[in-house]
Amino acid sequence: MNAMAADAWAVLGDTPEFDTPVPVGQLYFPDWARYEAAMRGIFARQYYTNQGPLAQELEQRLAGFLGVRHVVCVTNATIGLLMAVKALDLRGKVLVPAFTFPATVQALTWAGVAPAFCDVDLQTQQLDVAAARAQIGPDVSAILGVNLWGGACDIAALHDLARENGLRLFFDSAHAFGCRAGGVPIGNFGELEVFSFHATKILSATEGGCICTNDDLLAARLRNIRSSYGAGTPTPVPLTSNGRMSEAQAAVGLMSLEDFPRILARNRQLHERYQAGLAHVPGLQLVRPSGVDTTNYQYLVTRIDASRFGLTRDQLLAVLKAENINVRRYFHPGMHRALPYVDELPWYRDALPATDLLCHTSLQFPLGALVSDDTVDRICARVAAAHANAARIRAALGGS
Amino acid sequence: MNAMAADAWAVLGDTPEFDTPVPVGQLYFPDWARYEAAMRGIFARQYYTNQGPLAQELEQRLAGFLGVRHVVCVTNATIGLLMAVKALDLRGKVLVPAFTFPATVQALTWAGVAPAFCDVDLQTQQLDVAAARAQIGPDVSAILGVNLWGGACDIAALHDLARENGLRLFFDSAHAFGCRAGGVPIGNFGELEVFSFHATKILSATEGGCICTNDDLLAARLRNIRSSYGAGTPTPVPLTSNGRMSEAQAAVGLMSLEDFPRILARNRQLHERYQAGLAHVPGLQLVRPSGVDTTNYQYLVTRIDASRFGLTRDQLLAVLKAENINVRRYFHPGMHRALPYVDELPWYRDALPATDLLCHTSLQFPLGALVSDDTVDRICARVAAAHANAARIRAALGGS
Repeated sequence: MNAMAADAWAVLGDTPEFDTPVPVGQLYFPDWARYEAAMRGIFARQYYTNQGPLAQELEQRLAGFLGVRHVVCVTNATIGLLMAVKALDLRGKVLVPAFTFPATVQALTWAGVAPAFCDVDLQTQQLDVAAARAQIGPDVSAILGVNLWGGACDIAALHDLARENGLRLFFDSAHAFGCRAGGVPIGNFGELEVFSFHATKILSATEGGCICTNDDLLAARLRNIRSSYGAGTPTPVPLTSNGRMSEAQAAVGLMSLEDFPRILARNRQLHERYQAGLAHVPGLQLVRPSGVDTTNYQYLVTRIDASRFGLTRDQLLAVLKAENINVRRYFHPGMHRALPYVDELPWYRDALPATDLLCHTSLQFPLGALVSDDTVDRICARVAAAHANAARIRAALGGS
Repeated sequence: MNAMAADAWAVLGDTPEFDTPVPVGQLYFPDWARYEAAMRGIFARQYYTNQGPLAQELEQRLAGFLGVRHVVCVTNATIGLLMAVKALDLRGKVLVPAFTFPATVQALTWAGVAPAFCDVDLQTQQLDVAAARAQIGPDVSAILGVNLWGGACDIAALHDLARENGLRLFFDSAHAFGCRAGGVPIGNFGELEVFSFHATKILSATEGGCICTNDDLLAARLRNIRSSYGAGTPTPVPLTSNGRMSEAQAAVGLMSLEDFPRILARNRQLHERYQAGLAHVPGLQLVRPSGVDTTNYQYLVTRIDASRFGLTRDQLLAVLKAENINVRRYFHPGMHRALPYVDELPWYRDALPATDLLCHTSLQFPLGALVSDDTVDRICARVAAAHANAARIRAALGGS
């Protein structure tokens, strides 16, 4: 496919490259026989929820896989984060990056603490430890590190920062299941870590997540918060909720965990194919997962330099979406510019330059079970053609 | 079975009446063929969550069934209550009974408002409107009515009280799906109502629930709060969360709704059988659902008068649990005596005499799909025998 032949654009009225949208997430599916067997088991036991046998088995298997003492499975990672804040009994403010998924920050607010936004490193996109240090004050009680894009923030530096300043430390590791830092599985750091098992994640329970901790008391508190009437061994907690994982969720989680090596290997192949296909496109940089010695390849993140690529990130987004390629501009806006924080904490609006730049230049590409080698090749060809024909597209779109 | 022959008690070392525990909840199960068909459909579409076709269909069918403009399905009723408080943007204090499920009150705290506890009526067990009126002050912004035990609180009086005092009004209707007050389905009152579709409820989605409202703006706000990135039409909301109902939940919800008339009829039969079996037991009063002209018979609630029955509620509970009859003392303790409120709001400790009395005298009996006519008969016989042999049991248990 040469650039001239490829100069037909759905955004300008031509036929889209793909007939149906190419999704951006992982979207794991077992084969029907296994799925049916799991569902028949649930039906035969007629036990749908309330810490059933599959939820218990998933917790045990995850604990073994991650080498962590306690795994507390939950409805979803958002609820898990709410539970985490109450299990830690946090007060005041919590240091957190604004370049993250909304739930990271909104969970803090639901649980009654305020975010103190920190900027990120422009290269790694991870929490900037120096920026976090600069925000520490008497009302800061904790650090919520975010392990982004199949990578990790500077965990060792955050451990030191927390210890030196008497702060609690926990992690949103929704992007980092199966990753390792310094040979140790993510899930073993800080006081606890929260994973997401949403359908678009590398480990899927359709919806769901878990909280990992090596602290017995924290685990007991989390189990008591998870269900309105507490767990078998009551431990005083400030609040309870409903964070139960159903058996139907746990069933898919177990199959996904069993298939994890295969899913990871496939993610890696796709990553390498994108790298080969996009390496020579000027103004497009692939962001490599940082801070880990093993990644899960869960995301394919790029940054678009408009002056070299020829289109802005938002122009390229419009072009590719029209081709039915569901690229995403995660995260946009930064949480410091989203409700309710843009109103309640207005002083952060212009205080996070790296976050703002990433919010306007990052672009995520499709990965996972529904993406074939051929799909990657066609996506890369479209991106290269968009660069080659940038002037015409820009003019037609009414850009400068 | 006569009283002498029945004077063998598991609590005193004899064989239990039932080999396996008789559960207290509804526990709906479709037949396997329907369950398999639903699960095959989910699998064929490979669409597990994020407002999928089954979740959409369930919302439409529920709206039709309840005659309400908007139904917003959610992960569970606890999350639904959190979402409701933010959709209403409440501040300050909310009037709420302390005689309720923990989530009713804990949801208020998670969402940043404080409960102002009201006592209940000793006969109906529903919110005492005069007690609510007495609690109104400048920092009270809303009333959270609770429709208990397949009945309803005095909805008309609460509407008046709210209007006269400029308060918002919403309902926790976890117990009242399918009930009607003044011919109008529960789900149409106040500004919104929250239902639970937990596995033990008369309508089951295994876990799940929904929020009903006739207010277009509130519905839009709820849909935006339900998902971190909001809904298709963004409406500014103070916070977002993850309250999504999965397709696996919605599938069971749809089957349960289809079977609702049959389930209701069966509940009614069991209710009538209990009434016949327990009517002549001294010191045991069946609590009839109040405030509705149609009940769902979701609960079989009794009150134990120890002086006439011969055993206290807690002694009878111990006796029946030993027989593998899972009676429950809902609600115990009252929320005013539970963490964190017993510490944070100590002035309520001795302020709710009817609530305290009910917490120490109420007992719920098994009902629902896993309870047969024979099971009811055996339970009633055991209760009658416990009364007839109360003196011996009391002495053996070390009671007075």
